[in-house]
Amino acid sequence: MAGATPAEQHRRRDPHPPADLVVSGCTALVHDDDGRIGFADDAAIVVRDGVIDEVTTTAAVAGLPAVDHIDGRGQLAMPGLINCHTHSPMVALRGVAEDLPVEEWFNDWIWPIESNLTESVVELGALLACAEMISGGVTTFADHYFAMDRVAAAVTRSGLRADLGWAFFSSQGPEGRERSLDFALRTQGAADGRITTSLAPHAPYTVTDADLAATAELAREHSLPVHLHAAENRAQTDHSRERHGLTPIAVLDRAGLLDTDLLIAHGTGITEDDLPMLGHASGRTAVASSPRGYLKFGWDTTPVRALASVGVPVGLATDGAASNNTLDVWESMTLTALVQKSVERDPTWLTARQALDHATTQSARTLGLEGRIGSLAPGRRADLILVDLTGPHTLPLHDHAATLVHSVRSSDVRATVVDGRVLMRDRRLLTLDVAAIASELAEQLPALTRRKDGRRIQQYDT
Amino acid sequence: MAGATPAEQHRRRDPHPPADLVVSGCTALVHDDDGRIGFADDAAIVVRDGVIDEVTTTAAVAGLPAVDHIDGRGQLAMPGLINCHTHSPMVALRGVAEDLPVEEWFNDWIWPIESNLTESVVELGALLACAEMISGGVTTFADHYFAMDRVAAAVTRSGLRADLGWAFFSSQGPEGRERSLDFALRTQGAADGRITTSLAPHAPYTVTDADLAATAELAREHSLPVHLHAAENRAQTDHSRERHGLTPIAVLDRAGLLDTDLLIAHGTGITEDDLPMLGHASGRTAVASSPRGYLKFGWDTTPVRALASVGVPVGLATDGAASNNTLDVWESMTLTALVQKSVERDPTWLTARQALDHATTQSARTLGLEGRIGSLAPGRRADLILVDLTGPHTLPLHDHAATLVHSVRSSDVRATVVDGRVLMRDRRLLTLDVAAIASELAEQLPALTRRKDGRRIQQYDT
Repeated sequence: MAGATPAEQHRRRDPHPPADLVVSGCTALVHDDDGRIGFADDAAIVVRDGVIDEVTTTAAVAGLPAVDHIDGRGQLAMPGLINCHTHSPMVALRGVAEDLPVEEWFNDWIWPIESNLTESVVELGALLACAEMISGGVTTFADHYFAMDRVAAAVTRSGLRADLGWAFFSSQGPEGRERSLDFALRTQGAADGRITTSLAPHAPYTVTDADLAATAELAREHSLPVHLHAAENRAQTDHSRERHGLTPIAVLDRAGLLDTDLLIAHGTGITEDDLPMLGHASGRTAVASSPRGYLKFGWDTTPVRALASVGVPVGLATDGAASNNTLDVWESMTLTALVQKSVERDPTWLTARQALDHATTQSARTLGLEGRIGSLAPGRRADLILVDLTGPHTLPLHDHAATLVHSVRSSDVRATVVDGRVLMRDRRLLTLDVAAIASELAEQLPALTRRKDGRRIQQYDT
Repeated sequence: MAGATPAEQHRRRDPHPPADLVVSGCTALVHDDDGRIGFADDAAIVVRDGVIDEVTTTAAVAGLPAVDHIDGRGQLAMPGLINCHTHSPMVALRGVAEDLPVEEWFNDWIWPIESNLTESVVELGALLACAEMISGGVTTFADHYFAMDRVAAAVTRSGLRADLGWAFFSSQGPEGRERSLDFALRTQGAADGRITTSLAPHAPYTVTDADLAATAELAREHSLPVHLHAAENRAQTDHSRERHGLTPIAVLDRAGLLDTDLLIAHGTGITEDDLPMLGHASGRTAVASSPRGYLKFGWDTTPVRALASVGVPVGLATDGAASNNTLDVWESMTLTALVQKSVERDPTWLTARQALDHATTQSARTLGLEGRIGSLAPGRRADLILVDLTGPHTLPLHDHAATLVHSVRSSDVRATVVDGRVLMRDRRLLTLDVAAIASELAEQLPALTRRKDGRRIQQYDT
């Protein structure tokens, strides 16, 4: 019936159905029809069957039967954060290789250590990562790593939503690409539909042109998106030009990857010349930005303003904890605002509301999930978080957007809900036991971090 | 008796004296005789009469009688953080003027609003600031503002340590400078010695050369340090050169201020030419850096490497919450590491241990308190914090320094102790009631933020 909301349709079928979850008394971050962000006071959110049924007033839900209820007074409800690019199992290597240039970081530490990876380390690392992300208000993450069946198991157990891609190098031979495809096809829709999948070539500097072109073919044939690293830094772009006469983005274009749904991680080496190609890409093209790591390596940052000028969304990300030290998307949001103002030398750019747009709408578009997540609206999956606004560091409250982006911390997230299931409540994790996971992982660290002369899974040479 | 520690001397007087506070079972961040940072496992800290009596092992304090005990298992003890430059009452204006260039921020918002300041707003703002700082592990702050008797009252009530200066502009006539001196002389040593004071001219662009020279005279006459803003950004340096033919630092030098104990806030506009002057200053000269605000305004950052090359310590700071949005010194430490790597394009610079040196030794030197605070060592004031290392975002633990600087957040501080008094325990504030303070402040905000045409306390014109 035209105009009937899902809640109204539901009530027609059963006049007194209990909701699965009602959150009331909160302020809600909402998007209007043009995607502009606003804040509704004294709001309530009704969840049924894993979906947001209504966003209404607290008064309107008084007496509404509900299986579960969260008292949101003093809190703000908003869409769960989306980590658009990470390597979750790398939390096992958090802090293991510090204050180093990227060449030494890869060749002397990360890639030698990763030659010791086991399925167990991958799963325990991913579980610890899920715990960190749930406690920081992340409800969806895009992961690009190895032994991805173990990451899928961690996603299933944690209750999070994820897009997963099994990474490959051309040095692995055709099996790498085949494994990535096989995983993507058989894992799509797992965890009650919370898992989507992508093909995951590592990067243009570790995957040949022929393999990139073959990946583009497979993506089109199987309607799969592609998630890879490209133009990670300026040096990669310079070296690519020297070797191929093309930027990394032009290499992707020549391989046909800009005609697929493509998620490019980092892109700090994207140039002016690349913008028309990215703007005219026939596939969905997006860039994931994790600004903390770029500062730490002394790189440029993702050219957010230039990408905006050609309509390419930029999603927030953390990269892996071995370089970024945290999986804190809240920090990525704050740093995106601060660093973009700094590099553009323009304090009026990347306002708090723009930062929230990156965290919600643009991050959902980056993963191709804009119809499902990224806003609190009827029909969207019930992926939401509650943020405490009563701490001394967030008072007084003059401006909700500024408070969220510049004063609130990930530790202010009180509750994390995915598909209507409460994964954290009053900061207590309900699906994962951090102490047990960390203790099991700790036993495996000595064997993991023992570097053996010359053994590494790959050589970094941009 | 040569070689006897204070604890040994104490035991000789009374063989079974109860300690006031014992912290045991923790890891302790300690400095060796050359100031190098290390980490002692299974450590204990014994506090008597507000002073650190011993830093020893947990085994050594078994059975030691103590009035109070903190079980530090899973936690790290370190010196409390030092906020080397803030305007604590400005938390009342947190988020009120966002995404603006500094000229509009001052002239259209902050200085008009500050014409409505009341003593009550100053005290309530300072109290809320103290609550935020205690909960973020800050034990000492340097404050530069107006109505400083009210800030001193907040320091007394909160239990924090502070260096306070009553700010003045030359536009106030001689009374401004006289009030600053009067406050400094009569408040020195207040709050059981926790308060020290400084003279506080606002900046070379709001205080005349004659007033700067008079301030230098008073500082020498009364043995008072001076705390001011200078070379806050590159534009100020450029304008100073155009008007006076001198950089702001050269203006200070000509006024005789480099012969006083001088704390310079910001200094992002310090030039190569300034370095010899700063390096040869006969007074103690230090710079306080609050990198978050510089990113937000699109400024350069404090030239930490250049200042290090001439032996000038750089202390960590937050500035006021009206520009910085937080009083989170932990964030200042993390951002100092990240931003310095970025601007120097050198990932090996500003290592995690260097960042901890800025947070401890250099910040204590910046306030002239190096003999009293900044390290956990016998004879120092018992200003210390306990940091939780069991959260999923800090696991696993490969490197204490990296974990502290790049993974730990201010919200991981579990306990804050000043002069041996526990101000926060298990994250519960023991001296201040945030809800009551915030509620009283909220009533005064409408009158505070009502801007009246043309009224402002000062005009920003560098």
